[in-house]
Amino acid sequence: MALILTFLGKGGTGRTTVAIAAAKQLSSFGQRVLLVEQDPGPALEILLGASIGPDPQEIGANLQAVQLQTTLLLERSWEDVKRLEAQYLRSPTLKNVYGQELGVLPGMDSALALNAIREYENSGKYDVIIYDGSGDQATLRMLGMPEILSWYFRRFRQVFIDSDLGKAISPFIQPVTSAILNVSWTGDNLAQQPTNEANQLLDKGKSAIADPNRVASYLVTNEDAAAIATAKYLWGGAQQIGLTVGGVILNQASVIDTLAAEFVPLAVSALPKQSAPGDWEPLMDALPDFKQAVQAPRPISIDTGNRQVRLFLPSFDKKQVKLTQYGPEVTIEAGDQRRNVLLPPSLSGQPVKGAKFQDGYLTISF
Amino acid sequence: MALILTFLGKGGTGRTTVAIAAAKQLSSFGQRVLLVEQDPGPALEILLGASIGPDPQEIGANLQAVQLQTTLLLERSWEDVKRLEAQYLRSPTLKNVYGQELGVLPGMDSALALNAIREYENSGKYDVIIYDGSGDQATLRMLGMPEILSWYFRRFRQVFIDSDLGKAISPFIQPVTSAILNVSWTGDNLAQQPTNEANQLLDKGKSAIADPNRVASYLVTNEDAAAIATAKYLWGGAQQIGLTVGGVILNQASVIDTLAAEFVPLAVSALPKQSAPGDWEPLMDALPDFKQAVQAPRPISIDTGNRQVRLFLPSFDKKQVKLTQYGPEVTIEAGDQRRNVLLPPSLSGQPVKGAKFQDGYLTISF
Repeated sequence: MALILTFLGKGGTGRTTVAIAAAKQLSSFGQRVLLVEQDPGPALEILLGASIGPDPQEIGANLQAVQLQTTLLLERSWEDVKRLEAQYLRSPTLKNVYGQELGVLPGMDSALALNAIREYENSGKYDVIIYDGSGDQATLRMLGMPEILSWYFRRFRQVFIDSDLGKAISPFIQPVTSAILNVSWTGDNLAQQPTNEANQLLDKGKSAIADPNRVASYLVTNEDAAAIATAKYLWGGAQQIGLTVGGVILNQASVIDTLAAEFVPLAVSALPKQSAPGDWEPLMDALPDFKQAVQAPRPISIDTGNRQVRLFLPSFDKKQVKLTQYGPEVTIEAGDQRRNVLLPPSLSGQPVKGAKFQDGYLTISF
Repeated sequence: MALILTFLGKGGTGRTTVAIAAAKQLSSFGQRVLLVEQDPGPALEILLGASIGPDPQEIGANLQAVQLQTTLLLERSWEDVKRLEAQYLRSPTLKNVYGQELGVLPGMDSALALNAIREYENSGKYDVIIYDGSGDQATLRMLGMPEILSWYFRRFRQVFIDSDLGKAISPFIQPVTSAILNVSWTGDNLAQQPTNEANQLLDKGKSAIADPNRVASYLVTNEDAAAIATAKYLWGGAQQIGLTVGGVILNQASVIDTLAAEFVPLAVSALPKQSAPGDWEPLMDALPDFKQAVQAPRPISIDTGNRQVRLFLPSFDKKQVKLTQYGPEVTIEAGDQRRNVLLPPSLSGQPVKGAKFQDGYLTISF
């Protein structure tokens, strides 16, 4: 099992520099590290002083790097889709569409990157995977995907089954599928079988992201007011997707005390300015111990005994947090993100009795 | 018809500052300007010294600003979807799902932002819309969406009709749809009618993005080597989605001559450092004339007489540009983007006779 680390912060605060320093530090400790770059531009190669490709390659002892290429990942995923089709369908049609013609739509970069990280993690080749993404809302959307997508499956599966369309096509599913598929599905298991497999995958992703031993993020900022405010905002945003923020890295700055007060209870580490390209040692020495992320506040805790759910939502004020119960689950909205809290059976479907927002914690009573 | 302007460049080069200065400059000329912020964080409000909300509000003479909120846009779009369902379906089911519970998946920010910009443009209330997005590949994916999505429709519609699944469900479409819909559709017009409406929308988007009088971008960089390399990379990337790059804005730097050579034939404008928060005049005065974007090289030109297609792909070298003809169209790959060139009838389906890459231009002969 690898630890997946990522850095959140405003553009230009040095997130990529911190990611490189972290990769060098952890590999120097003997950890097998993979540095994953999302941006297809040349910035990482310039900072690293090495050229990297779309498949992991060694750039130092215990250290590999890869620059994700969405067009290539899309080609490979398309081959998987065609294999699946050929397995289930009597006369596959998708073979006439080539991965090499598929364009990239918004969202594909994130979905394919998350899948690539999952595969790197599964390979067992790495102890630490450092993901250098856009470090903003887009990274949060990516890591929030397993939870939100599984909510969509859960919610819309029932809506479809109950719908006129679902009922109207239900008698045709068996004759149609038996005519074209190698397997025979009825309406019931058509809705269940493939979504079950997908759900298992999403559940694995959800539990990884909720566990700071497996996925953790750190905030990166400099002394600029907009950068500090953005880091605080992303701190709250990370909680909304259940991602633990392990600490704050203050880049190229010295006045650590005033900043530390804004991020209580997180630890703040100050990184010196790089004296020359390639001089990584002082940065590596100044980095925090990333294994300490487990000490940071957890985004969510559920106390079934007291019938309470407690969410850590730092940096938001009361007015910015919205709690609703429109559908069958409790929905929390903050930081342009919406989270549906999947409750344990004893609390599921129960009405909310009260909610209190204090010291950055939202406590919901059932 | 509004001019839609956006700024591309590495994070931290001052794209948002340039966007604000441009908004202030153009509104001071009497143009009705809307400044659209994509990032949900607090950075724009801090730079602007004003608070802005999820609907356009006046922040100066002729100047409005809005901070897009994806959760809210999703709620509103969901209402539209429910209205459509209620219009076509005898007993609508989606009414039981509330916009307030929908989470945000990767790609939704971009798709909903593009739709919001389209609506602001259609409102006739603005002469210029300035979009302050992430300014990187994500912005290019967003603006490339109409062309790429219409390719997917074009390509997969036929695949579906020819497929076993398409053939197998074809006899059931009429009975199923007549049972649940207010209108009656056969297999043929089910595939045609709704996709035609979508195609018209996408075609409008495509022609807007291809026209520098309607959509134009400018590169923003500072003196940092990684920032300059990123700007060059995005210059090439913009061409790949058919977006004109009108010029380069060099922020907080003075050595303009060496930089200008790297971006020939684009004009480079140097912006001074802001002396104090709120002191926008020197920046406004130093900005280029944004209407001059029409003078910049066009991303694509098609010469049916000489049976040639010419693509402007600056900043790439020959090895980084891939030309293939797997499917029915010609595909160009560069900068982790893939573009399928929709050819005029006289060249469509013709094999490529030759291709030449010179001075940043790819010339394809048929």
